[in-house]
Amino acid sequence: MTIRVMLVGLGPIGCGIAAQLAARAGFEIVAAVDIDAAKAGRDLGDVAELGRTLGVAIARDPVEAARASAPHVAVSCTGSSLEQVTPELEGLLGLRLPVVSTTEELSYPWHAHAELARRIDAAAKAAGVAIVGTGVNPGFAMDALPIALTAICERVDAVRVERLQDARIRRVPFQRKIGAGLTPAEFAERVAAGTVRHVGLAESVAMIADALGWTLDRITDEIRPKIADAPVASEAVSVAAGQVSGIVQDGVGFVAGRPAIELHMEAYLGSPETRDTVHITGTPNLHVEADGGYHGDVATHSITVNTIPKVLAATPGLHTMRTLALPSFAGAP
Amino acid sequence: MTIRVMLVGLGPIGCGIAAQLAARAGFEIVAAVDIDAAKAGRDLGDVAELGRTLGVAIARDPVEAARASAPHVAVSCTGSSLEQVTPELEGLLGLRLPVVSTTEELSYPWHAHAELARRIDAAAKAAGVAIVGTGVNPGFAMDALPIALTAICERVDAVRVERLQDARIRRVPFQRKIGAGLTPAEFAERVAAGTVRHVGLAESVAMIADALGWTLDRITDEIRPKIADAPVASEAVSVAAGQVSGIVQDGVGFVAGRPAIELHMEAYLGSPETRDTVHITGTPNLHVEADGGYHGDVATHSITVNTIPKVLAATPGLHTMRTLALPSFAGAP
Repeated sequence: MTIRVMLVGLGPIGCGIAAQLAARAGFEIVAAVDIDAAKAGRDLGDVAELGRTLGVAIARDPVEAARASAPHVAVSCTGSSLEQVTPELEGLLGLRLPVVSTTEELSYPWHAHAELARRIDAAAKAAGVAIVGTGVNPGFAMDALPIALTAICERVDAVRVERLQDARIRRVPFQRKIGAGLTPAEFAERVAAGTVRHVGLAESVAMIADALGWTLDRITDEIRPKIADAPVASEAVSVAAGQVSGIVQDGVGFVAGRPAIELHMEAYLGSPETRDTVHITGTPNLHVEADGGYHGDVATHSITVNTIPKVLAATPGLHTMRTLALPSFAGAP
Repeated sequence: MTIRVMLVGLGPIGCGIAAQLAARAGFEIVAAVDIDAAKAGRDLGDVAELGRTLGVAIARDPVEAARASAPHVAVSCTGSSLEQVTPELEGLLGLRLPVVSTTEELSYPWHAHAELARRIDAAAKAAGVAIVGTGVNPGFAMDALPIALTAICERVDAVRVERLQDARIRRVPFQRKIGAGLTPAEFAERVAAGTVRHVGLAESVAMIADALGWTLDRITDEIRPKIADAPVASEAVSVAAGQVSGIVQDGVGFVAGRPAIELHMEAYLGSPETRDTVHITGTPNLHVEADGGYHGDVATHSITVNTIPKVLAATPGLHTMRTLALPSFAGAP
């Protein structure tokens, strides 16, 4: 069976997912939706710069597009904020469409957005379909993977995950999102405005805590700039010494006053290391490292596509990566 | 809720699991069963050498023990051969008990033992309970973990897993099982007799292939001795130069004549490295290494205990680690 997919949201992530879906066996893009009037009516292959047309004209209304194309599933990539995307997700669920979303705050919404989570869960159950938020981070590198590693532990005392990356390997919008090229003052302003930040550390901390049966006192999520010692540049962004080359962000979950879950991210132009490391303190201690890391763009597009069959097979309701079957590549059926 | 567990099989693995269950919050051992007449009537704490009694006398008949103790789940650790343990598993399922088993051939039985798998699946469905085979290997290090890593891949061309361990850190029965201390001729005899081997590589290869949607031409599983260059010894076993210090075993799955899945194990006294490494060739390439490896004994006991709540929550039938929810440490409820 070929899985018929409607794509909603054609920013960089949606376009990356479109490229994979168009190339991979077992999937067919039958509809594509974006609110940008400049994209309306254009072919998805052009907008996603695939080098060929796909015969899918971009629509503005997901309800009409779904009714015209009979998709099996919707993939939504329209924003990080659960509050902002909830009406859209409810609309998709109202069409009885299972949903895979890259909305970071949907990856584990039961703590920070419990009321929205209940609404979405109820809508999914009423529709008889499953919905999940996923991605590489949140969704895998700093939550699902370390959680899976704890399965071989007799005891877990602390979890520390480090995600270090040279942002020069990432897409330009990501480089902007981490503040590369800003002055320290501009960086501070944008952090205050919420436009420079990685979204999802608090969700990942909560997911790990729940998996381990831990009750957290509190979760902190702190951002600071990485200041360039020397000039550094990517193809698109130049950073002078003293300017910001990227972000350092720490999400911490405290148990009885102790920082029991520590998620440490560094993403900046010129990082000498790109790696993902999980340290579990317990019995046994574990130290698991991915040399070269999990590439944020490819990995997010991939896990979103790979999660589609899992959601189609899941029980109705709001899922997380904890409740779906074991993650895996989705081979052709 | 405390989960009431009946343990069946009190060899080294069953006793290790007993030690964890007795120490961990959320679990209570309510019955223990072994066919060994010398253990009958003794306290489980004595037999498992826990340094204290548990108030659980070892029974010989699982049906009677279950009826007297009302367990929520059975943990079975009675053998590697699915053919040999199937009658016992059917008996437990007949009592409507969910089952977690360390029988290696149950970890992914749909290829080598499809008829037995169907029987067990039918018995579990008729009883309305779930059953799964798990452990660190098979069950995690060479199958579930590499499968989970493929979730962030756009394309997978090959999977290679290496599991290297200095067997001096393992329990003595394991050291004997890998042939440490034998002459090369004795090793060859025991391989031919099937008493020296790791069970599960073919199961892990099949599990990976199915997760990726690959059709295999064939699976090979080859064993050779590691010959000591110089004398080496553990606390219990001494190996002279020229004798066998352990085992090297390769399970390979071929796709269109190509070795697409390679599982390489080395376990011998004096191995200079103890590590578990997953190499995925694809987009992206992944190289994930656990420095120090996943300790075979602790990890198997742990994942068996940690899988109990997953099986209690699963749909009825025969599961594998692919179909259960994400593996994790089982915190106290």
